[in-house]
Amino acid sequence: MKKFAVLLSGAGVFDGSELHEAVLTLLSVTQAGACYQCFAPDIAQMHVVNHLTGEVDVKDKRNVLVESARIARGEIKATTDLVIGEFDGLLIPGGFGAAKNLCNFAVAGSECEVAPEVIDFINEFIETKKPVGFICISPVMIPKLYNQARGTIGHDTETAHAFNLMGGQHVEANVDQIVVDEANKLVSTPAYMLAENIAQAQLGIDKLVRKVIELAA
Amino acid sequence: MKKFAVLLSGAGVFDGSELHEAVLTLLSVTQAGACYQCFAPDIAQMHVVNHLTGEVDVKDKRNVLVESARIARGEIKATTDLVIGEFDGLLIPGGFGAAKNLCNFAVAGSECEVAPEVIDFINEFIETKKPVGFICISPVMIPKLYNQARGTIGHDTETAHAFNLMGGQHVEANVDQIVVDEANKLVSTPAYMLAENIAQAQLGIDKLVRKVIELAA
Repeated sequence: MKKFAVLLSGAGVFDGSELHEAVLTLLSVTQAGACYQCFAPDIAQMHVVNHLTGEVDVKDKRNVLVESARIARGEIKATTDLVIGEFDGLLIPGGFGAAKNLCNFAVAGSECEVAPEVIDFINEFIETKKPVGFICISPVMIPKLYNQARGTIGHDTETAHAFNLMGGQHVEANVDQIVVDEANKLVSTPAYMLAENIAQAQLGIDKLVRKVIELAA
Repeated sequence: MKKFAVLLSGAGVFDGSELHEAVLTLLSVTQAGACYQCFAPDIAQMHVVNHLTGEVDVKDKRNVLVESARIARGEIKATTDLVIGEFDGLLIPGGFGAAKNLCNFAVAGSECEVAPEVIDFINEFIETKKPVGFICISPVMIPKLYNQARGTIGHDTETAHAFNLMGGQHVEANVDQIVVDEANKLVSTPAYMLAENIAQAQLGIDKLVRKVIELAA
């Protein structure tokens, strides 16, 4: 049975992994007959957002690994505990956590940097030529990780511009589409960059997961 | 378009709504062509569990409505803001939050009580004869809300015994099955009381959602 790592960034769209995207990723992997292991960096969240009011709770501090464990039902490992030989590929759901905790795109734009723990983790997949799927906003990390790579964040002009400025080749895509960079073995899909509901997000995520599994063959 | 309320109890299996069950519920509602509005009681969580270690974090305090908003992408209402005429039925995912925050079954067993805000909320659906779907451990509330009602929590002997002791009629069911009480317009399914993976949980939850939609016709 093929086994995929799923890289999480917290638990909640405004400061962590987008929960629908994360759960839909786990669902598609399992429905396709593969299995998964969740990972997250053992670092502090950039901040905590009260998801009811949308405001930052300046008094609250949370850890990305601890909060991501909520999505994984406790079955999660720190990114530093990766044993690359056990895995066939990697999947990275979106949510602001991908742009606030995995990298700092949310505040630095095209000047962003990927967190050291996250670079080391993803590079293990890249160096061993294992496929990686980037969902929603997480593709903004692609130009920082690959050379001359193609990816999508949907239709958002500003984010697409930043993607190209960082050295990537942005390709527009609709919510039910994926963009495949065969040479780099990477796949991306817009999900909630465009999705108007969870069923729309599911279409692109399921296609992405199945393509990553195919590239892992 | 039919509209369903989804009652959440936090965000994380050990102290809130089981995230997979909650997201799968929203997915099935949307895929069936209906829509939803999430609700949660505006009350303190019984406690906060560190999902990485499984231990209670005695220093942390969280609010059920605020944490549930993570699942709802911010689009959530307090249970006291229900306008029953807008809804065709109700769905209640499981997770320990259902047995710790919505009621206190996790500590009181068959002597449990349902939280006042939750009783008032669910009773509006019962009094207007609208169907309700209970998932995973949330069916333990059924005997406290209905007279002589049938429901399932799967095969767990102790929980089934408590269910009957409270006046309910427990019916065994497998993970891909639902138990329907047509007279009371209520449906239940075991989900993660039995599921060994998310794809198994999806089977029963999708059947439950489709049956609740049918009963709402």
